[in-house]
Amino acid sequence: MLDLTTENITENVQIANSSCSDRRVRYLFERLVVHLHDLVREPRLSTEEWMAAIEFLTKVGQTCTDTRQEFILLSDILGVSLLVDAIDHPKPKGSTEGTVLGPFHTHEAEDVTNGANISTDPQGKPLLVICKVRNLAGQPIENARIDVWETDSKGFYDDGNFWFKAIVPVPYPIPSDGPVGKILGTLNRHCYRPSHMHFMFDHPVYDPLITALYLKNDPYETSDAVFGVKSTLVVELKTVQDKGIAEQYGVDVGCALINYEFVLVTKQEAIDMRYRNAEAAMKAQGKQMQYINGLPVPDID
Amino acid sequence: MLDLTTENITENVQIANSSCSDRRVRYLFERLVVHLHDLVREPRLSTEEWMAAIEFLTKVGQTCTDTRQEFILLSDILGVSLLVDAIDHPKPKGSTEGTVLGPFHTHEAEDVTNGANISTDPQGKPLLVICKVRNLAGQPIENARIDVWETDSKGFYDDGNFWFKAIVPVPYPIPSDGPVGKILGTLNRHCYRPSHMHFMFDHPVYDPLITALYLKNDPYETSDAVFGVKSTLVVELKTVQDKGIAEQYGVDVGCALINYEFVLVTKQEAIDMRYRNAEAAMKAQGKQMQYINGLPVPDID
Repeated sequence: MLDLTTENITENVQIANSSCSDRRVRYLFERLVVHLHDLVREPRLSTEEWMAAIEFLTKVGQTCTDTRQEFILLSDILGVSLLVDAIDHPKPKGSTEGTVLGPFHTHEAEDVTNGANISTDPQGKPLLVICKVRNLAGQPIENARIDVWETDSKGFYDDGNFWFKAIVPVPYPIPSDGPVGKILGTLNRHCYRPSHMHFMFDHPVYDPLITALYLKNDPYETSDAVFGVKSTLVVELKTVQDKGIAEQYGVDVGCALINYEFVLVTKQEAIDMRYRNAEAAMKAQGKQMQYINGLPVPDID
Repeated sequence: MLDLTTENITENVQIANSSCSDRRVRYLFERLVVHLHDLVREPRLSTEEWMAAIEFLTKVGQTCTDTRQEFILLSDILGVSLLVDAIDHPKPKGSTEGTVLGPFHTHEAEDVTNGANISTDPQGKPLLVICKVRNLAGQPIENARIDVWETDSKGFYDDGNFWFKAIVPVPYPIPSDGPVGKILGTLNRHCYRPSHMHFMFDHPVYDPLITALYLKNDPYETSDAVFGVKSTLVVELKTVQDKGIAEQYGVDVGCALINYEFVLVTKQEAIDMRYRNAEAAMKAQGKQMQYINGLPVPDID
């Protein structure tokens, strides 16, 4: 490990890391070193630029508190959070797609406060949300645990159907007073998320689904700061027109209405899909896969 | 920018970043997003692993203080610091190679304290260091500003020659009580740097040289925790045998001795080499280069 040059330094760092006994960690560091070095080598990163990156990362770390996670925010605005979720919770055709939680949902305490504030906002426009929960075969799913953010507490769930009263969501900015907000400025990007409502489904048989519904024609529909919008999750805001329906749910005629059917995949379906995707990803790297604890490593490394 | 999948998310993040007006920043983020996404996609990074990475980076940031830079330490142990230095200060054949400063030299105040402690260490073995400073044509370089760490203050410089009395350097560990030390443990790596002595040369005509001399046969000669050793910088520890030399420099016969000739490259030579290397790196990416403020960007991006 002498005479390290811009060309052979990568191989030498790999050798230094090669006696790590955890094969998965070893593989992750092998990939990290390859990409980190290429990221420096390709654009001929200068010392000044690298020091600016070091200072930026330091500030990101030091902006984190018990209620703010600036590194997750950074991950969000670079599309990494969405990517990790898509890999971890693959969705076959016909099932409801997942999406990012967004920066306000990393700490339960804040969620509650946030939701509570919004739901009691006297400016809020009342909204009725009526949903179904099905599996890929179209059968209703019972006993799912459902968490919804930005609603009040009056929710009902029965036999694969649930409904609740909330307020029509509005766009909001992600925290932009820290180093990540500054980067968004440098990149000439805005810091807004389109109007949306989060849903989380938990069930013994089904893969957890973390998703959100977005309102059609929102000004930020195609430019979400954290890349969360998917067209299958965009819903049209309707209005309650039937007097019987209005009475049944205790809202006024003319109240805003969202109807949606969520389709969950079983844990086994998700496991099978992750395996197939991992195999394909490893093949694309020219490697045979070994699968350890549900995660891939190269067969020979 | 809808229907983001594991495959098209990268392109969509690139589009979002594409209106950044600084071409160099735009190019760096383009490369960052490509490599960051590949780093997640290739090994099918799990949510749990990504959260562990987020927590690790947060701890690294929060370990940084006015006198400790844990992100530089992380950069050091991953070979990135050495790589950035090699790119920024390319050395043609025949010139003295540069190397990393190492984690103890990021803050002047600490350097002084560190150096002072070592030089007054009564356990230290006296060392005489006699050096020349030349250019590639073999001509002595006058008026270079030279900084040496781990020595006392009695240094002399004249007409391309300098000498000073110091103590024989010993191996030392990099800070290992933080998150980076933990990573070294996970990777089954030690935290030691081989015995060395830092030199920094500054001159109006010559490219700054930051380098170090390493002692031959040091136990960590081939496993420096921060990848700083280069064979051309490894020196044999000799002893002063001539009584005349001993008297001339005010040391005892038998005192440890290092002789070394440093060869500097001109700023213009370094500029030309950086340009050629940047052009080659861009060509390897299949791109034509445009050179702005001494740094490359793709001609069409």
